[in-house]
Amino acid sequence: MLIVMKKQATEEEIRAVCDHIESLGFRPHPLPGAQRTAIGVTGNQGMVDQGTLEEFSGVAEVIRVSKPYKLVSRDVKEEDTVVHFPGTNASIGGRNLAIMAGPCSIETREQAFAVAEQVAAAGAQFFRGGAYKPRTSPYAFQGLGEEALRIMADIRDAFGLRIVSEALDSESLELVERYADMIQVGARNMQNYSLLREVGQTRKPVLLKRGMSATLEELLMAAEYIMAEGNYQVVLCERGIRTFVDHTRNTLDLAVVTAVHRLSHLPIIVDPSHGTGKRNKVVPLARAAAAVGADGLIVEVHHQPDKALSDGAQSIYPQQFADMVGEVRQIARILHRDVLDGIQVEAQASAPVRGSR
Amino acid sequence: MLIVMKKQATEEEIRAVCDHIESLGFRPHPLPGAQRTAIGVTGNQGMVDQGTLEEFSGVAEVIRVSKPYKLVSRDVKEEDTVVHFPGTNASIGGRNLAIMAGPCSIETREQAFAVAEQVAAAGAQFFRGGAYKPRTSPYAFQGLGEEALRIMADIRDAFGLRIVSEALDSESLELVERYADMIQVGARNMQNYSLLREVGQTRKPVLLKRGMSATLEELLMAAEYIMAEGNYQVVLCERGIRTFVDHTRNTLDLAVVTAVHRLSHLPIIVDPSHGTGKRNKVVPLARAAAAVGADGLIVEVHHQPDKALSDGAQSIYPQQFADMVGEVRQIARILHRDVLDGIQVEAQASAPVRGSR
Amino acid sequence: MLIVMKKQATEEEIRAVCDHIESLGFRPHPLPGAQRTAIGVTGNQGMVDQGTLEEFSGVAEVIRVSKPYKLVSRDVKEEDTVVHFPGTNASIGGRNLAIMAGPCSIETREQAFAVAEQVAAAGAQFFRGGAYKPRTSPYAFQGLGEEALRIMADIRDAFGLRIVSEALDSESLELVERYADMIQVGARNMQNYSLLREVGQTRKPVLLKRGMSATLEELLMAAEYIMAEGNYQVVLCERGIRTFVDHTRNTLDLAVVTAVHRLSHLPIIVDPSHGTGKRNKVVPLARAAAAVGADGLIVEVHHQPDKALSDGAQSIYPQQFADMVGEVRQIARILHRDVLDGIQVEAQASAPVRGSR
Amino acid sequence: MLIVMKKQATEEEIRAVCDHIESLGFRPHPLPGAQRTAIGVTGNQGMVDQGTLEEFSGVAEVIRVSKPYKLVSRDVKEEDTVVHFPGTNASIGGRNLAIMAGPCSIETREQAFAVAEQVAAAGAQFFRGGAYKPRTSPYAFQGLGEEALRIMADIRDAFGLRIVSEALDSESLELVERYADMIQVGARNMQNYSLLREVGQTRKPVLLKRGMSATLEELLMAAEYIMAEGNYQVVLCERGIRTFVDHTRNTLDLAVVTAVHRLSHLPIIVDPSHGTGKRNKVVPLARAAAAVGADGLIVEVHHQPDKALSDGAQSIYPQQFADMVGEVRQIARILHRDVLDGIQVEAQASAPVRGSR
Repeated sequence: MLIVMKKQATEEEIRAVCDHIESLGFRPHPLPGAQRTAIGVTGNQGMVDQGTLEEFSGVAEVIRVSKPYKLVSRDVKEEDTVVHFPGTNASIGGRNLAIMAGPCSIETREQAFAVAEQVAAAGAQFFRGGAYKPRTSPYAFQGLGEEALRIMADIRDAFGLRIVSEALDSESLELVERYADMIQVGARNMQNYSLLREVGQTRKPVLLKRGMSATLEELLMAAEYIMAEGNYQVVLCERGIRTFVDHTRNTLDLAVVTAVHRLSHLPIIVDPSHGTGKRNKVVPLARAAAAVGADGLIVEVHHQPDKALSDGAQSIYPQQFADMVGEVRQIARILHRDVLDGIQVEAQASAPVRGSR
Repeated sequence: MLIVMKKQATEEEIRAVCDHIESLGFRPHPLPGAQRTAIGVTGNQGMVDQGTLEEFSGVAEVIRVSKPYKLVSRDVKEEDTVVHFPGTNASIGGRNLAIMAGPCSIETREQAFAVAEQVAAAGAQFFRGGAYKPRTSPYAFQGLGEEALRIMADIRDAFGLRIVSEALDSESLELVERYADMIQVGARNMQNYSLLREVGQTRKPVLLKRGMSATLEELLMAAEYIMAEGNYQVVLCERGIRTFVDHTRNTLDLAVVTAVHRLSHLPIIVDPSHGTGKRNKVVPLARAAAAVGADGLIVEVHHQPDKALSDGAQSIYPQQFADMVGEVRQIARILHRDVLDGIQVEAQASAPVRGSR
Repeated sequence: MLIVMKKQATEEEIRAVCDHIESLGFRPHPLPGAQRTAIGVTGNQGMVDQGTLEEFSGVAEVIRVSKPYKLVSRDVKEEDTVVHFPGTNASIGGRNLAIMAGPCSIETREQAFAVAEQVAAAGAQFFRGGAYKPRTSPYAFQGLGEEALRIMADIRDAFGLRIVSEALDSESLELVERYADMIQVGARNMQNYSLLREVGQTRKPVLLKRGMSATLEELLMAAEYIMAEGNYQVVLCERGIRTFVDHTRNTLDLAVVTAVHRLSHLPIIVDPSHGTGKRNKVVPLARAAAAVGADGLIVEVHHQPDKALSDGAQSIYPQQFADMVGEVRQIARILHRDVLDGIQVEAQASAPVRGSR
Repeated sequence: MLIVMKKQATEEEIRAVCDHIESLGFRPHPLPGAQRTAIGVTGNQGMVDQGTLEEFSGVAEVIRVSKPYKLVSRDVKEEDTVVHFPGTNASIGGRNLAIMAGPCSIETREQAFAVAEQVAAAGAQFFRGGAYKPRTSPYAFQGLGEEALRIMADIRDAFGLRIVSEALDSESLELVERYADMIQVGARNMQNYSLLREVGQTRKPVLLKRGMSATLEELLMAAEYIMAEGNYQVVLCERGIRTFVDHTRNTLDLAVVTAVHRLSHLPIIVDPSHGTGKRNKVVPLARAAAAVGADGLIVEVHHQPDKALSDGAQSIYPQQFADMVGEVRQIARILHRDVLDGIQVEAQASAPVRGSR
């Protein structure tokens, strides 16, 4: 259910509606738009009485939402969601394409700084790096854990880059939330609903990667899980689906970008590294993602890909990344968008902000 | 690495080898076979020195295992793994096909008992029922939780049926382990490695369902995660894969049964309910699973499928189930296997055994 | 559109209705059933006037068929279609499962006779062998052509086996129709509509293999193409679909057997050889196909698979085939069906019947 | 086998080598490059003696080609193949992206001319239109046949656009070859090897669409069938593959463009209309195709898509097409390529050239 408030509705009127919804045992989600505020109503079962709500002061309309997803839907919020990173010029979902880059895994301080310096110079605003790695084999390198997060926090201090890293479970989530600026939920965990709920209870932006065989609806429903807990800063990510194709590791489904933009107000970025699994295909598909209208890119970059502990074959060289950013910027401009020259941080903003639950 | 002990090796000799492996920082996994004991060696990195180990008393051979999966491999353990349920005649992986049945979700005590009575009478040895449901929508019925587990424990007392239920995360795992006889890891969590590790630390048998787009190797590696923690009682389950096909919800890949039996000593059962998603196809595919050589079946049964809170469309009626068991038993006998007439419990064994971590 | 005649309708009444339909520029397809005759009406466009038809003597009912397939539909013909092979005890779609076996390609007379003798002894009623092979590479062995057909005609004379062989185009169709008893349309040609039409103009039974990524509806529509030309003796064949799975060459979709039986009166057999691509999986999947309710099997058998010019890896040995037939017969009996002991031919029937167009 | 001639090799030397190859029962395929000529050798079986060939005057090197595809391979011809349309400025595979547009089916002269005028004005160089339609249903509109081809020939005269149309079989091929400038082989016929061979015997350029579930190797082998018959003017086309995805009719696999360019010298264009099946996704994916590096686009355009007899839902409006061409041109320039302003024809070139077999 969706309650559309009048343009001139006051904060008190909005609060009164929310209080009423809560008193009925449901959860209100006030979502301010440019023109009006809409209030999504969620709850496991039953239905709020429509007539009573329409009588509340400031209410313009009460709409039954028939789609299984509610809070992610454009019906509920017409304007694009833009995720801001306070104290910086970085954002996701607005005019500028967000550029995220870094190694698959944080291996050493030297490696991480070497890559970070180069991707920052090339214009990236976000540094991605794995501290906790979901590996197919229990015997493979599983990441440096908290040490990796500390290195990345230092990279933020040194270069201003905002930090994106994956959480796998309650413990790693607590640490990623503490050190990083954005919490990644990986493809293998897209339907780990317990993790989605916990992530929904943090107040850090979330990067939600599409599962390997997830439909559009399943992807949106996974985001709905996070939003239903009150965290509305969700960014989706297309990273390739599993098909019969054998010339790439996955098949990048770029049409999903357009499909998401039609149904949802959430931003969606593209990962051409996992989406292809092959270095020689990363840059062409990154250009394609920009051309299709993606809100950003996340790319694996390594200064010595042949020595990488994971995903070396799909990591591009720093110089390739720099060239890629240049091409992507030109394509973005054709679509009346742009790519920042680089991250800028206000003096006081470089310290990590501790998320509160 | 795999250490094959001589036939006549003593327990002391085996322990000495294990102690040595531990002293080097690795983990030994002694796996007794009919003829000899083999000791699997796991550990995140590096390699035990082969020469030293070969000098230990009782050691027949030291083998480097090149496959990514070790403990699940037939190279390590030639004999089929049979999972026993002490105090009962039920087992999985031996001569008799295991038959698991029950509703998708436990909805009420009445519903659960009504179904349980009928599936027990038809010959099932295991009762399956969801207490914690991984639902695509955060607003859908999520299961009765601990109450459902208590109902199922009472069903064990009443009918002798061993209880199988799904755990989603640490909290639900603790409860499922306490009340149930077998812990299910669902398809969506097949690559939730944190959960796999936790499940590996329990001492209850595990039913590991194949992910919707998991390859054979990924399935075996998920089992390896559990076994690497020391829990060797793993049963795999084929439940259909995601394809372009639209006449069933998933496509049941029965050839994977044969493929698993060649590579691994673990049992594999088949779920024709999720594997087809349509009531009229459950029984034919159950017969096919028995004919291909599966070690058992897990089937959704509901006495009023049209009123089911979840998966009603794929739940069969109790009478269909009874007929199915009869046909499956006849097919099993053609393959020199059989289906028990029903569960039998020794007087003292019906109380739940608390797993220890 | 479908015209259902009254039970007691005479041949004259049926002919009068057909004549009327033809006079309007449409095509009537009288399909006799056990109780009544139904007349399917096809034609590229427009619609026959319903009222006029209902006034014809002997007409019980005129039904608009909304499904895209008409002649293949159970709505049009409720009874199972059984394809008979006159002068023999062989049939497809009735009580007995049809067993087809033989080498992928006819390589030499010696090879073909060696295989034929053994599969005939094991109970096969049909001999399959490729004369024209659709090979991925233009440089691979393309089949012996007419010489292969002549060898197979001699095999029919020697062993009574009915001959099934694939036609690729107009020329090969003409020859296959002349020499063989059943014309195979291969998976790659399932949507070669020109070939389907030509095959529809022959009067020999057709074995139509499902395309590698064909949906159920596309498969039925391909059969509809053949039937719309007036050839109603169509047998479908599931031979595996293309998925992400890598432990078999294709994924055998056994649920399609049940789905076809619900929607269509046509028989459907299963090809576990192409469906798996691996010798060790052919027999288990053949059993599964029988258990799911398939109307027959088509299996590649070679007396020296390691020397086969094509598909050696998926060809089973004659002894495996003989064991398979025994197991399949036992499974068939559980489903109240059976497998013949072997082909029997009336003295005068062994000569090939020339199809007329 | 591949024979690389010396840079300074004369035509006589090349002919002598070819004659020798023919005298041995093989087929020589001289493929001139910028620097040197290479001669591919094909034939069903056996191997030319390498030593003898190396002794021929003008031969630099004799190479055994181990890949299953030979003539399509970059090993055989390093330079990109550019297909020219004599008497016009149109080409495929060179610096300019080829732009093909038109309705799915030719329905009437008025419709065809209305669309053609607008796509010509927007910069298209090729007019696509179906005369023979491969339809899933035998009762659906199958195309106007030769009448459609005559209309398209008139469109060439009126607007200069080169004509692309699909052939389904021998009869339609003869007519398409006579009237059109480029013969299309559709996705459903990609492995109709008889048709590929016949098309290979024409001397008109061929547009070969990828099958719905064709691997990269199968696509290249289909082109090899055409080239093995002596027709080297083959252009590949990615048109979407069949996956589990349900938000588009097919999933466009743009990485295949990069993969083809690495392995083969043949051009590859992209069809975003069939690749998505939805009007709102055609233009974004067309931009993405240009950005990934495709050699051109083929797009369905209809002036009244809601009234189209086929594929209306995926046909874009002429104005959308014009905007698309503008955006694609800008993206092409970023990759140092371009899009022509429109077709230009020398006075004497507008008459159709009759292909000779």
